[in-house]
Amino acid sequence: MGRPPIEFSLWDRGDGAFSPAVAPRITFLTRRALWQTCLRPDLGFPDAYAAGEIRVDGDLIDVLTTAFRATDQSPWQELRRRYFQWLPLPQGNSPIESRRNISAHYDLGNAFYQLWLDPEMVYTCAYYADATLDLARAQTAKLEHVCRKAGLEPGMRVVEAGCGWGALALHMAQHHGVKVRAFNISREQVEYARRRARELGLNRTVEFIEDDYRNIDGRYDAFVSVGMLEHVGPDNYRALGRIVRRSLSPHGRGLIHSVARNLPGPMNGWIHQRVFPGSYTPSLREMMEVFEGAGMSVLDVENLRLHYARTLADWLRNFERHVPEVTRMYDEYFVRAWRLYLGGCSAAFAAGILQLFQVVFTPARNNHLPRTRGALYGNGTPEFWEP
Amino acid sequence: MGRPPIEFSLWDRGDGAFSPAVAPRITFLTRRALWQTCLRPDLGFPDAYAAGEIRVDGDLIDVLTTAFRATDQSPWQELRRRYFQWLPLPQGNSPIESRRNISAHYDLGNAFYQLWLDPEMVYTCAYYADATLDLARAQTAKLEHVCRKAGLEPGMRVVEAGCGWGALALHMAQHHGVKVRAFNISREQVEYARRRARELGLNRTVEFIEDDYRNIDGRYDAFVSVGMLEHVGPDNYRALGRIVRRSLSPHGRGLIHSVARNLPGPMNGWIHQRVFPGSYTPSLREMMEVFEGAGMSVLDVENLRLHYARTLADWLRNFERHVPEVTRMYDEYFVRAWRLYLGGCSAAFAAGILQLFQVVFTPARNNHLPRTRGALYGNGTPEFWEP
Repeated sequence: MGRPPIEFSLWDRGDGAFSPAVAPRITFLTRRALWQTCLRPDLGFPDAYAAGEIRVDGDLIDVLTTAFRATDQSPWQELRRRYFQWLPLPQGNSPIESRRNISAHYDLGNAFYQLWLDPEMVYTCAYYADATLDLARAQTAKLEHVCRKAGLEPGMRVVEAGCGWGALALHMAQHHGVKVRAFNISREQVEYARRRARELGLNRTVEFIEDDYRNIDGRYDAFVSVGMLEHVGPDNYRALGRIVRRSLSPHGRGLIHSVARNLPGPMNGWIHQRVFPGSYTPSLREMMEVFEGAGMSVLDVENLRLHYARTLADWLRNFERHVPEVTRMYDEYFVRAWRLYLGGCSAAFAAGILQLFQVVFTPARNNHLPRTRGALYGNGTPEFWEP
Repeated sequence: MGRPPIEFSLWDRGDGAFSPAVAPRITFLTRRALWQTCLRPDLGFPDAYAAGEIRVDGDLIDVLTTAFRATDQSPWQELRRRYFQWLPLPQGNSPIESRRNISAHYDLGNAFYQLWLDPEMVYTCAYYADATLDLARAQTAKLEHVCRKAGLEPGMRVVEAGCGWGALALHMAQHHGVKVRAFNISREQVEYARRRARELGLNRTVEFIEDDYRNIDGRYDAFVSVGMLEHVGPDNYRALGRIVRRSLSPHGRGLIHSVARNLPGPMNGWIHQRVFPGSYTPSLREMMEVFEGAGMSVLDVENLRLHYARTLADWLRNFERHVPEVTRMYDEYFVRAWRLYLGGCSAAFAAGILQLFQVVFTPARNNHLPRTRGALYGNGTPEFWEP
């Protein structure tokens, strides 16, 4: 693990031996927790933490950021990275497996997510364009940033792959006058999104479809997908590229927003097996599989890594306020697991281990392109190269 | 070739058979020209054109854009792409070969380039931020865009790999108060750049070094390289990444600007053998070899494809004004070859075959990053995540 500035202590030292001031400190409360962590850190540590056999003193995100920075270049990580193709990936991404994977996380109950997400229920990286934005306003800023990047204009037809609880689809229809077809395989999310569309009187302009992205049909002026690629699996990137390509009109533009990494490697075992079954966060190089060979051209890539560190920290703060309700809804194991997931992911973004890329692309021959990206930053309407 | 809306005619039809109104038209003036073109279009056509055995009626860039759009997805291109790893690449990119490759193009004589480049002698893609900019102002806008992306602040130390005639290095020192070390292996360019530095009184702040990028030493706050990656060769991308990484301070930022393509494939034979020996234009996926594995994180990618189509069109217009001088300096073969190179490259960018990527990156752990890219578009000074 290197030598991170964290105090480690064991089950046999009484708590009285430490003053609270020595935090950051990680205490292994059982022998099993220590062994599990040593044998397979990425799975053993979180499992033991969720079981209540590890205690972390100090700010959880800070302690984990420090630990990640110390361990990211350890020989263990290097070994995992080098031989990861032989590690078993128990969950696949066929249409049937995808249904099960998605349901396991996103169908935990809308009431749970409502406790700690923003009012629009956006469960992806927000955009804190300036330091004064709170979570809700940063999520709205993100939706708007995506709409501008996709070049939305009134009357356009838009398809969304993996629409969560529908916030982006509804925002696009309400604020940009576009027609949207939004696909998602989480039943609970789709039901929620349809109800919201009816409440907002948008059920004629936004259609929520409970179906796999592989079944997207039709032609659109824009393709957007925010936080779905993580669930697609690298074996399906080329197929996704073909679907995107056939969905885009000649002047169409697309945006894919995804958690990513600086270099390919195995998923964190705990995230892959317990939190997001079947998930994979690609490197930018791997993401290019989607576009290369499908006749598409990348226009713009932006890394929003530190925005996600902040988003997750805000989610964790909201979550902590509702621990009693969450404990009643599930149990203490669940609370600890979710605390570690939210805090651990925030730390992974802060430590530079995870990245968040927004990639904008278009069919290779499209010359109806803005000269600059200035319009994304409020500098009027874009000036196009060709009409 | 598909069926492009171009009239093809042969040596045995008198010119009188056509009215000028039938342009676009391509005339093969000899049997050899036709055979050469059929046998190996990417080398035979340009060789025959340069030899004066092919005539193009109509606007050269328009005719070639039309032809490229028709042929880009032809079976011939598909075959080349699929089997390109077995095509011989006669020129390598060792330090000695690089010297020879670079000299062959860039040491043609400064007087020649001065005829048709802008006054600052910038021989890379300009940035036509709005439609009113002429070549000179668009080149200055590009230099400024690069400086903003690299996050220059007074007092910083900057290293430039492949500095051409020194315009960017001098601009950075003059307008951003930084100290620059600029590397280049073209003797004529370095001599020109040193003279300019003395004329501008910048010879204490800008050091021009006639040496290979592989010999860059020291630590810098920014690494910039505009138009050199095309000459590095994919086998050297990982080594370049290590050089960049060791050159950057923990908060340092880098920018690499390069001609690229949407998917890997063989170089156009004529460009590779006659125009830029040893050159290779990578896909974005291939470019990622530089960053992945070197502990760097990509922050921003921008595609300036249509800016380069326009830049090359402006160069060609200037070139055409000076054809008598160029013919006296070289010969008619040279004039036709350069006309085809400038016009053909402009067409390749317009047709969506070539791309131009600016990639901004930083050491993976650097959190001293601007929240948004707004400052690139004149929205004040950037607000940073961490000091």
